[in-house]
Amino acid sequence: MHPTRLASLLIVASLAATSLASSAKDTPAKPPAHKPASPIYGVVVPDDYRQWQLVGVATEDAPLDELRAVVGNRIAIDAYRLGKLPFPDGAMLVKLAWKRQRSAEFPPATVPGSATTVQVMVKDSKRYASSGGWGYGRFVDGKPVDKAQHETCFACHNALVKARDDVFTKFMP
Amino acid sequence: MHPTRLASLLIVASLAATSLASSAKDTPAKPPAHKPASPIYGVVVPDDYRQWQLVGVATEDAPLDELRAVVGNRIAIDAYRLGKLPFPDGAMLVKLAWKRQRSAEFPPATVPGSATTVQVMVKDSKRYASSGGWGYGRFVDGKPVDKAQHETCFACHNALVKARDDVFTKFMP
Repeated sequence: MHPTRLASLLIVASLAATSLASSAKDTPAKPPAHKPASPIYGVVVPDDYRQWQLVGVATEDAPLDELRAVVGNRIAIDAYRLGKLPFPDGAMLVKLAWKRQRSAEFPPATVPGSATTVQVMVKDSKRYASSGGWGYGRFVDGKPVDKAQHETCFACHNALVKARDDVFTKFMP
Repeated sequence: MHPTRLASLLIVASLAATSLASSAKDTPAKPPAHKPASPIYGVVVPDDYRQWQLVGVATEDAPLDELRAVVGNRIAIDAYRLGKLPFPDGAMLVKLAWKRQRSAEFPPATVPGSATTVQVMVKDSKRYASSGGWGYGRFVDGKPVDKAQHETCFACHNALVKARDDVFTKFMP
């Protein structure tokens, strides 16, 4: 085989390895422009968050009456595992929430009903310097809720869990 | 460069690609022999289940009073997403459970307290032919609970959710 052809093959093999490596990583921080973004922060729902690892779970009482799960991208999970605070730029957390309902098959359990909100936190210490480095987005049916709701995010997080870099959910091993 | 050396490099690059690909997959079905295995089924806690994707969440009432999350390996998640029943061999599900407690920072929420059980389902239609193709394991502090508890798994799952291949937890998008 001609050395040039072999060199090309090497490059192809190397690119394949790189592609495999990067496909195992999380969404790049820049989302496509067409996705609806939250007011104030311009945060969008990450494409692949449903593939992210679990951080923890929770319920919220009535009137919301919800079951919740928080997942994090690779950067966020690594920071949790290392106990690294503040979270590094690029960390993203997504909270999934559903109405809580009695299980039809096993009555001692409650299980998720219809989905309610998807809530997103994106760390970018420069872009979001005035809100503790976090950009916030709350979405219903893929669309961001209004500006007034987004004005409450930072104040509440910062008032209640400033010592954990404004993040409520703890990583549950 | 000598063709033999170039061929070796190609093999190395190819192995690197293979290694990256397989590292992104789930645990092989055969666990190390030293891990404590459940009675009846010989199921162990998979090494990497905490990296698996979320299936769904639940609570269970008192006296257990728990918050729960179920995660699945790649084979299980793919089957859920495709609506494929029965689950294919190699599918694994793990339920994490914690005592449910009031959030200190945000009282309308309940959050995980101490971990209680880790429960495992492993699909192997030949090995577990007499229990619907699933092997079961319930673990406390990494150790399997007794045989009597394991005798209840299949009967209950099969009585209540046979139509979903004996799996309670639905995938919540």
